[in-house]
Amino acid sequence: MRADGRQNDQLRPMKITPHYIKHAEGSVLIEVGETKVICTATVEERVPPFMKGQGKGWVTAEYSMLPRATQVRNQREAARGKLGGRTMEIQRLIGRALRSVVNLEALGERSVTLDCDVIQADGGTRTTSITGAFVAMALAMEKLVANGKLSKLPITDYLASVSVGIVNGKPLLDLMYTEDSQAHVDMNVVMTGTGKFVEVQGTGEEAPFSREELNTLLALAEGGINTMVEEQKKALGRVSGLIGAGARA
Amino acid sequence: MRADGRQNDQLRPMKITPHYIKHAEGSVLIEVGETKVICTATVEERVPPFMKGQGKGWVTAEYSMLPRATQVRNQREAARGKLGGRTMEIQRLIGRALRSVVNLEALGERSVTLDCDVIQADGGTRTTSITGAFVAMALAMEKLVANGKLSKLPITDYLASVSVGIVNGKPLLDLMYTEDSQAHVDMNVVMTGTGKFVEVQGTGEEAPFSREELNTLLALAEGGINTMVEEQKKALGRVSGLIGAGARA
Amino acid sequence: MRADGRQNDQLRPMKITPHYIKHAEGSVLIEVGETKVICTATVEERVPPFMKGQGKGWVTAEYSMLPRATQVRNQREAARGKLGGRTMEIQRLIGRALRSVVNLEALGERSVTLDCDVIQADGGTRTTSITGAFVAMALAMEKLVANGKLSKLPITDYLASVSVGIVNGKPLLDLMYTEDSQAHVDMNVVMTGTGKFVEVQGTGEEAPFSREELNTLLALAEGGINTMVEEQKKALGRVSGLIGAGARA
Amino acid sequence: MRADGRQNDQLRPMKITPHYIKHAEGSVLIEVGETKVICTATVEERVPPFMKGQGKGWVTAEYSMLPRATQVRNQREAARGKLGGRTMEIQRLIGRALRSVVNLEALGERSVTLDCDVIQADGGTRTTSITGAFVAMALAMEKLVANGKLSKLPITDYLASVSVGIVNGKPLLDLMYTEDSQAHVDMNVVMTGTGKFVEVQGTGEEAPFSREELNTLLALAEGGINTMVEEQKKALGRVSGLIGAGARA
Amino acid sequence: MRADGRQNDQLRPMKITPHYIKHAEGSVLIEVGETKVICTATVEERVPPFMKGQGKGWVTAEYSMLPRATQVRNQREAARGKLGGRTMEIQRLIGRALRSVVNLEALGERSVTLDCDVIQADGGTRTTSITGAFVAMALAMEKLVANGKLSKLPITDYLASVSVGIVNGKPLLDLMYTEDSQAHVDMNVVMTGTGKFVEVQGTGEEAPFSREELNTLLALAEGGINTMVEEQKKALGRVSGLIGAGARA
Amino acid sequence: MRADGRQNDQLRPMKITPHYIKHAEGSVLIEVGETKVICTATVEERVPPFMKGQGKGWVTAEYSMLPRATQVRNQREAARGKLGGRTMEIQRLIGRALRSVVNLEALGERSVTLDCDVIQADGGTRTTSITGAFVAMALAMEKLVANGKLSKLPITDYLASVSVGIVNGKPLLDLMYTEDSQAHVDMNVVMTGTGKFVEVQGTGEEAPFSREELNTLLALAEGGINTMVEEQKKALGRVSGLIGAGARA
Repeated sequence: MRADGRQNDQLRPMKITPHYIKHAEGSVLIEVGETKVICTATVEERVPPFMKGQGKGWVTAEYSMLPRATQVRNQREAARGKLGGRTMEIQRLIGRALRSVVNLEALGERSVTLDCDVIQADGGTRTTSITGAFVAMALAMEKLVANGKLSKLPITDYLASVSVGIVNGKPLLDLMYTEDSQAHVDMNVVMTGTGKFVEVQGTGEEAPFSREELNTLLALAEGGINTMVEEQKKALGRVSGLIGAGARA
Repeated sequence: MRADGRQNDQLRPMKITPHYIKHAEGSVLIEVGETKVICTATVEERVPPFMKGQGKGWVTAEYSMLPRATQVRNQREAARGKLGGRTMEIQRLIGRALRSVVNLEALGERSVTLDCDVIQADGGTRTTSITGAFVAMALAMEKLVANGKLSKLPITDYLASVSVGIVNGKPLLDLMYTEDSQAHVDMNVVMTGTGKFVEVQGTGEEAPFSREELNTLLALAEGGINTMVEEQKKALGRVSGLIGAGARA
Repeated sequence: MRADGRQNDQLRPMKITPHYIKHAEGSVLIEVGETKVICTATVEERVPPFMKGQGKGWVTAEYSMLPRATQVRNQREAARGKLGGRTMEIQRLIGRALRSVVNLEALGERSVTLDCDVIQADGGTRTTSITGAFVAMALAMEKLVANGKLSKLPITDYLASVSVGIVNGKPLLDLMYTEDSQAHVDMNVVMTGTGKFVEVQGTGEEAPFSREELNTLLALAEGGINTMVEEQKKALGRVSGLIGAGARA
Repeated sequence: MRADGRQNDQLRPMKITPHYIKHAEGSVLIEVGETKVICTATVEERVPPFMKGQGKGWVTAEYSMLPRATQVRNQREAARGKLGGRTMEIQRLIGRALRSVVNLEALGERSVTLDCDVIQADGGTRTTSITGAFVAMALAMEKLVANGKLSKLPITDYLASVSVGIVNGKPLLDLMYTEDSQAHVDMNVVMTGTGKFVEVQGTGEEAPFSREELNTLLALAEGGINTMVEEQKKALGRVSGLIGAGARA
Repeated sequence: MRADGRQNDQLRPMKITPHYIKHAEGSVLIEVGETKVICTATVEERVPPFMKGQGKGWVTAEYSMLPRATQVRNQREAARGKLGGRTMEIQRLIGRALRSVVNLEALGERSVTLDCDVIQADGGTRTTSITGAFVAMALAMEKLVANGKLSKLPITDYLASVSVGIVNGKPLLDLMYTEDSQAHVDMNVVMTGTGKFVEVQGTGEEAPFSREELNTLLALAEGGINTMVEEQKKALGRVSGLIGAGARA
Repeated sequence: MRADGRQNDQLRPMKITPHYIKHAEGSVLIEVGETKVICTATVEERVPPFMKGQGKGWVTAEYSMLPRATQVRNQREAARGKLGGRTMEIQRLIGRALRSVVNLEALGERSVTLDCDVIQADGGTRTTSITGAFVAMALAMEKLVANGKLSKLPITDYLASVSVGIVNGKPLLDLMYTEDSQAHVDMNVVMTGTGKFVEVQGTGEEAPFSREELNTLLALAEGGINTMVEEQKKALGRVSGLIGAGARA
């Protein structure tokens, strides 16, 4: 049995608090076990230079951890004067994942920035960020509909993410920090509400893995993500009915 | 009457949630009206190079705002690659203020870093950071006593901080953002529990001020800080009885 | 008696050499005891982006020390690749102080940059910079009047600054370096020629201070600043008669 | 048929020139179609700070492109003053992949740095870098054996990498630039000589993908990597017989 | 006799491979002994801000070494976050030298960037870069003529460069690394095909030198540069006949 | 005749004020015409890492201009966050030039840093810096002799520097800014008191130059430098007799 008593295919308790930050167009506090992330969505009526004049919108993300989100204090990246490679990799992943379910043409020439700030970390911060950012983004885009700036929500499907891995030879769903640090194989999976993969990132630095192991892990992830999407629907309330309305023709 | 119905000499509602972040040696979420700051205290068994070999400890602070703590999103300092002048000024102030009530000799060759991260801003973020960081620091130092590393708390007095200012000709206590942005005179005051000044920073960029106005503002601040210290005592519970034990001989 | 034989309420000898740098629109070498600062004022017919289109001007400042202005050589900030917190704090203070006596509407959409470069330091470099920069600014603005670009000097009042502090229990005016490094309370005061405060920055990191001590220090500063304004008038010569002409209606 | 006449499951022509740079302990020029990368391996008798005193070695990588490796000139990262997110992500991937087949205990407290510099780019620069860096690393480590510093090659298996993707609905092996830029699904696969996965990174930003599509792509990659390992063996000559000798017990 | 058997006034074997990088408008691999540099020329239909609206073009250069071009690995400047002084000095030299033989008015409002990337270093990397960059530039500008964008090549003369120095009291042409590191006097000379000096940079940090020594070194350089220009003509083939056509009136 | 009435082979009026900055071990204010530079020499009892354990000292230089040293204000390099190429090139030149007349073995394991800060610029700032820095260095080293740390001055010869150039076809000595900006050939020469060259840096970006022109310019420079050395002797007073005592055996 796992340290916190979970089954191998069981998610940690998950809680999404919407409208957590009053200034943001959309925001949540998402808690997955002891991992806690504030996700805010900012809508701006402009796009970055490389997107100008294409009649399309843009969705991007930034990710950070408070210095004491972790057991040992981390120096701030602002103090070091640059973003680390891990941070850049994660924020590129979050942005790419969210764009996969947004109809950028329908969004119009505006941008949505998702800020994912980890206030307490216990494994799975990047996957939790994606799951939370999706809800913050949907809340923010719903305001564009409510304000009459958009006729329907430009979101084509649900999107959530979870980590899976092989620890002591056993495939596990939703690794917490103590599990993650012992995993021989570690995989982050991002899926849509209709069960397609958006990102599969598996790494076997400690021990290469077989096709069978890969398939077992993907099945575990699929189960977890289905549960997560149910939680997203609860947090979104009436907004949940609008998801998918803007599917690409 | 003020926009939120307060008297001119009245603080906003204030709430301190101790032990907010599980990994930190000390931590609080402090809320003063709509301003919310996470303060964590990290204890490390080493001092910065310039303090080595003096048999004394060190207390320092860092300050940051989440990008969407404010009405308009601010670019991250980590993304810009450097800390802004305002940030540096504030974190220097917080560190200096806290050191004024710590007996660094009694602390021994260890350092305490206070991280103050504003998750929602509505005026008074630097003063709220000081008030919250004091509690986080006391909680962290109490652990050193509980672990037998220190024989008594090396804190000589309580410490809290509030802003005051002159808005439309009226001296006000504890400015919220809409008041702060209209103030002609703006002052941040840091005081000890026994009523002495640690920092007085008054600025009249919009309108120079007289000695009388200065004295009126200081009196307002003194009242507010006394109330804040009562809230700190409640949050500290039994630890509150230990403050002052380590007063400098 | 003080190390240099001064009374506790006595300024060091002060000398202002106007027109010290030939290329600048306004410039001085200001010497206060052994502290020497070159202040230049640069007028440019544009304002920073955040001020555009408001029909107002801008006044800003930069501060630096030559590496060997101090007893021990300091590494250049250009070599370190960033400005330190102390530098940023000081240049924000200088800019804010000078703006308090400028009618920015009357200045029109142009900017004045005050560069304060300390070539030799012996305490009070920030206050000396303010006192010198005021004169450089007035000289530069007078050229705008002489050239017909402005009808009158957009300066509402004189402005000077001095440090005060408590050293070995005694309140002293105009601390030199050896005094400053032993001060328990340290305060920088910026005042107008008509005796109002623009900035009061007192810090008691070593020993908190009472309201009475604060008032004693402010009285000392007031005396010193009156003397300094007389020196500014001498340096400005006929320009001195124009100060205050542009007072805000 | 593909633009260059290849079958969908066919690699581009591949050429590995060993000992390309005379100063490096190991080096190759690897050409895969029009993509050309210089890979050098540098052996140093020290490890980074975080690895000290563990009796283990370290393998790391850096990746860069010459400004005109691409159709449009890219600004140098040295001129911009920081590494981009894509570069960091790639060099982290290369290092992680190579470490997966190195017995770090057997390597001892020394480090091997793989520099992968793309001199001409036509798709697949990260996968080509991994395939080439493996050979450069093996050549460099063989010198440690030849010099008597190691008793056997601390490499547990072969390692190579290729890209696969879905373009116009067709799964393709080894995408060149024109294919890569149109791919809806894009995947980079790193495998060992014995057919296990070390990294699987699939992304469907343009179109999410199914489990079946994933499996088809992995099968294509497996075929390509087998061919690549044969080319690595030819380039390594007699050194090829030593690979696997250092397998972890 | 010299370590590689050369006469004191003899160049190392030199080889220029034109069209080395397919994407660039002009490119060469230049090898002078064991020193190897990839030079690419990029033509862009715009000029830097300081040149706008003058009806003239611009030629500039960047220089870099791969980390393992040298015997000991050098940290990348991109990783350090800034260009070193040596790099800046060299790229300023290359740009200035090339501009001396370009008729910028005839080039029109476009810019040519020469990227010189040293892949293997054995002395003389800056002079080899100039000699190679000249050929890459001529090839790129010839394309502008071939495309009808220019009526004739805007190059006024040939240009090549070589190092000379005094080693163990003997004046030598074209120093390789082992010679360069022992030289008491070290000089880089850039000359035109018609025998005029463009740059003379002599330094006697180890031993000041006389006018006679200077003249001897310049004569050596002149001989070497004449030979180099012949190699440039061979590499340019039919383009060589166009050089000088654009001489300034 | 030249704009300021000088002959073509005539220096501008030159003035060296020794002991200009009280904290530095050696310092001067040097004025050559309207160009004014503060040079300080700092002695530290340590050498940079790359010189450790060799029993030798080190001499290095830093160069900067105050923002308003020039007609148009220049942004500070500290504000831009990096040194420009011109600055790096100049400070490397100054350091190299001064080391050429210092016996580093005799200096012992200590370093001398020359800070050259241009407070007003009118051409020739780098050459003026070298001429002034030599005097500051000699004064600082003399203190080492006076304190008994060295038995004799480790300086082997005088050293001074001047610019020469061809303006409107005429060779001129000691260019002021208006001449420098029109020069077709521009050369900086550093010579010893005994008439040997330490640096010759000639550039003909605007018009290549012949051997005869080069020789004419060198002769002009030689005359100017002889005069400068006489001024250095006057400024050094009794210290001047010690120069050359430490000549390398």
